[in-house]
Amino acid sequence: METALANKIVGAMLEGDHFSKWLGIQPMLIEPGHCILKMTIREEMANGFGMAHGGITFSFADSALAFASNGHGRMSVALDCSISFPAAVKVGDVLTCEAKELSLTNKTGIYLIEVLNQNKEKVAFFKGTVYRTGKEWFPAQS
Amino acid sequence: METALANKIVGAMLEGDHFSKWLGIQPMLIEPGHCILKMTIREEMANGFGMAHGGITFSFADSALAFASNGHGRMSVALDCSISFPAAVKVGDVLTCEAKELSLTNKTGIYLIEVLNQNKEKVAFFKGTVYRTGKEWFPAQS
Amino acid sequence: METALANKIVGAMLEGDHFSKWLGIQPMLIEPGHCILKMTIREEMANGFGMAHGGITFSFADSALAFASNGHGRMSVALDCSISFPAAVKVGDVLTCEAKELSLTNKTGIYLIEVLNQNKEKVAFFKGTVYRTGKEWFPAQS
Amino acid sequence: METALANKIVGAMLEGDHFSKWLGIQPMLIEPGHCILKMTIREEMANGFGMAHGGITFSFADSALAFASNGHGRMSVALDCSISFPAAVKVGDVLTCEAKELSLTNKTGIYLIEVLNQNKEKVAFFKGTVYRTGKEWFPAQS
Repeated sequence: METALANKIVGAMLEGDHFSKWLGIQPMLIEPGHCILKMTIREEMANGFGMAHGGITFSFADSALAFASNGHGRMSVALDCSISFPAAVKVGDVLTCEAKELSLTNKTGIYLIEVLNQNKEKVAFFKGTVYRTGKEWFPAQS
Repeated sequence: METALANKIVGAMLEGDHFSKWLGIQPMLIEPGHCILKMTIREEMANGFGMAHGGITFSFADSALAFASNGHGRMSVALDCSISFPAAVKVGDVLTCEAKELSLTNKTGIYLIEVLNQNKEKVAFFKGTVYRTGKEWFPAQS
Repeated sequence: METALANKIVGAMLEGDHFSKWLGIQPMLIEPGHCILKMTIREEMANGFGMAHGGITFSFADSALAFASNGHGRMSVALDCSISFPAAVKVGDVLTCEAKELSLTNKTGIYLIEVLNQNKEKVAFFKGTVYRTGKEWFPAQS
Repeated sequence: METALANKIVGAMLEGDHFSKWLGIQPMLIEPGHCILKMTIREEMANGFGMAHGGITFSFADSALAFASNGHGRMSVALDCSISFPAAVKVGDVLTCEAKELSLTNKTGIYLIEVLNQNKEKVAFFKGTVYRTGKEWFPAQS
């Protein structure tokens, strides 16, 4: 039930999420507070070093933050995010990321998102805090 | 002299920086350790809320981090970045950001980047640390 | 008027702030959203390297965050903080820090706090986000 | 063998770590890249809200960062740390924290440290990056 709602919400989000579509983000698993995503690095995502722009990796993790946190039903927006880059990402790399919920209170949610390449090398660690608004994605009908 | 070198480096970086081009980032001012950039938010940069994806704003600031830090002459890569989002960014907004150097040592540089919209509202604060490699962009000929 | 209120609030906070007292934090300037603090590093604040423990420098900046943000009148608590350490702090160093407000909305405040030693060397940069509760420190009497 | 070295290093660190002693930090488990610590919140650690000062919780996690990263044998210092506070810590609380290594390269190590109270409630999440110097704690004799 809750997993169905989380998938319905992420479906609705992705519908209008032009940038996640441009990135080619594919949801592999969506659950409330948890998700796994996949994407492939294209030439147009490279920076001046011929590597993936740091913003690409951040964006991938930030979409995971949005999908995991909104999957609980309430509209949630990022307040603060921090990212560490232990290794470079190359054009052609296939990235996966997993968002795990570290904590959930009435007002905020905190998530850790690890980003790996196709060789299981860890390329980024992202910690994000969202503010949970009072608005429901799909208010219960009465 | 140093400003000329910083501009030459950022010119070379932008040449191959496909993603910054896709974003439409325009350098307004480039100096060693300092830069001002501009970009306009397009429909394809929107997320599932119809706002600019957080990754777009991050990417804009991250390019500023790269341009400001590399402008000193040595290739420099982001290690850790944190971003705070006090206000949403809308499609059509014209953003500017300014990267200021907080500190520069032999190994690292630390920068604060403020992102503003066309109404001078602050929409993001980015703090980033780069690792300064030993490689020069344009080694002096002898 | 507002500065008087900010000073009254910080006075009340410091009264019960045993740890800031242990640290020997002295307020040099208190205004709503802004403060300057001073403290001296003692032997008992050292870590296993004979330098100030990173937590000491963080605590100093975190007190500045609390004083600057609560000075507006509403009880405010830290949600997310990030700190960068460009240089070591030694026993005997006299630190000052200044908290500047980057943004203030109804729900959150964002602050940058720079920490300097007695030689004006920058030893830490702290960015912090507070959640502004609905509780007033000194509710207006009616 | 490696665990013995890690314990020897942390023993040497704690010897001179006056502040960790003041905090009453007790190592429960020390391994290279991993540790579990315990401490009790005392009155003198309280802030102006009668809760543990944010710097206390940060310091606890920062000691875990130092012990886990230095346990590999090379002197390592914190570059960047970020902390999120989902719940308040009270006087009398008994905290435990566990440092887990997210990644380790030649130059840097990245760690996640979760802090829990005696009821297993999560009270802080800390992500830290260390710079690994070339200096060994106990250089091998030849």
